[in-house]
Amino acid sequence: MRLTLLGSGNAAGMPLYGCVCEHCQTIKDNEDLHRGPACALIEVDNKKYLIDAGLMDITRQYPSGTLDGIFLTHFHPDHVQGLFHLRWGIGQSVPVYCPPDKQGCGDLFNYSGILDFQEQRKFESFSLDFLRITPLPLIHSKVTFGYQFEYQNQCIVYLTDTKGLPPKTQSILEASSIDLLVIDTSFPTNIENSGHNNLSETLQIHQQLKPKRTVLTHIGHDLDVWLSQHSDNLPESVITGHDNFTVYPY
Amino acid sequence: MRLTLLGSGNAAGMPLYGCVCEHCQTIKDNEDLHRGPACALIEVDNKKYLIDAGLMDITRQYPSGTLDGIFLTHFHPDHVQGLFHLRWGIGQSVPVYCPPDKQGCGDLFNYSGILDFQEQRKFESFSLDFLRITPLPLIHSKVTFGYQFEYQNQCIVYLTDTKGLPPKTQSILEASSIDLLVIDTSFPTNIENSGHNNLSETLQIHQQLKPKRTVLTHIGHDLDVWLSQHSDNLPESVITGHDNFTVYPY
Repeated sequence: MRLTLLGSGNAAGMPLYGCVCEHCQTIKDNEDLHRGPACALIEVDNKKYLIDAGLMDITRQYPSGTLDGIFLTHFHPDHVQGLFHLRWGIGQSVPVYCPPDKQGCGDLFNYSGILDFQEQRKFESFSLDFLRITPLPLIHSKVTFGYQFEYQNQCIVYLTDTKGLPPKTQSILEASSIDLLVIDTSFPTNIENSGHNNLSETLQIHQQLKPKRTVLTHIGHDLDVWLSQHSDNLPESVITGHDNFTVYPY
Repeated sequence: MRLTLLGSGNAAGMPLYGCVCEHCQTIKDNEDLHRGPACALIEVDNKKYLIDAGLMDITRQYPSGTLDGIFLTHFHPDHVQGLFHLRWGIGQSVPVYCPPDKQGCGDLFNYSGILDFQEQRKFESFSLDFLRITPLPLIHSKVTFGYQFEYQNQCIVYLTDTKGLPPKTQSILEASSIDLLVIDTSFPTNIENSGHNNLSETLQIHQQLKPKRTVLTHIGHDLDVWLSQHSDNLPESVITGHDNFTVYPY
């Protein structure tokens, strides 16, 4: 099982449009430090699955037939906006495993095209070949699932977007032996937000779930600035995510 | 006044994702023949305005401060999807002139960020410096405006998405001396669609409005294939649009 972060930013991304701070000026010309909308690629048994679909050029990066499915965490635009174009293709359909959200986003459900939306139920595991997936409800402004991916003896947990964890999600994860936790950490410690973790909240979850490694994603501007100056302050097993960064195996 | 088509395709674009036809195979490797979502740039008096915002990389193409406004024809995703990211910028706001559509698209109205949506009324002209703009209702599945742009003695009319024209829009345009008409022509003559012109319908409008030049845009797969074989069959004053093609002045 292999997991690559494709995007590690929040909806605004980095550099922040219109920002004239020193950090944004520095990274403007360094493509490697840009952050696109949080999403990832999970590869297992020669299959490729996206986690979320905020990438604006999915059709270029994944020609027809190269994508075996998409796990959607929720229907906010920065997690689904790449589907608006992809859906109008022809030929092989693309399964999209998603939380139950009647509204979806825009007219995706009215004109789903080649997308085969498959609504999942919270805590009900399902399997794709030898990959076992468990949707775990999170705490966000729209119905949102994190996903636990289990393959052989490996366990990867991907949790965006969320502020904290619901008790049952937390107890399931505390009972799991997690090799890699990827988690929404949008803000530095001094900023409180009702839909996203700040760094302090993430570190608390890291202590509670005890994954072998935690990777920060969905990183916003202010946290990015903080990390550029203080990343040495993170615990050894907590690392900063970046775009196009293979975080598992490590 | 200068008008450049930035995108000349329908929502699916060209090449069509998943299509294995000879034409799609041919253009796949020729970036110049790709078609992105229909949109345009209008430049006048050192100001830059977008017509529609389906471009997936507006923030890259137009750094903060370089875009003076956006005219939206309607709120279908292929005409607004670039706004989902742009809105989260900071600093100078971007005026977005749009038709009255309570629903909009996704959560654009709930979280408008730096976008300053300014609802317009049909047939009520407004001015930006010396540019005079008249919103003209069209016939589509969502409330949609075409726009007439007048500057000095020049007149450009941009009509997407539409099938035919409502009587009052038609009579206003018949009474105008149009230098350039850009018009939704999604399908070849043999295909009927309730929301878009086919080529035959466009040619009829061309005859009725008598613009000096007509440019086809919002071109779908089947029309693109037809045009690749038969573009010589078009009247001399009717030309095929392409991405990144300055169509006025000609």
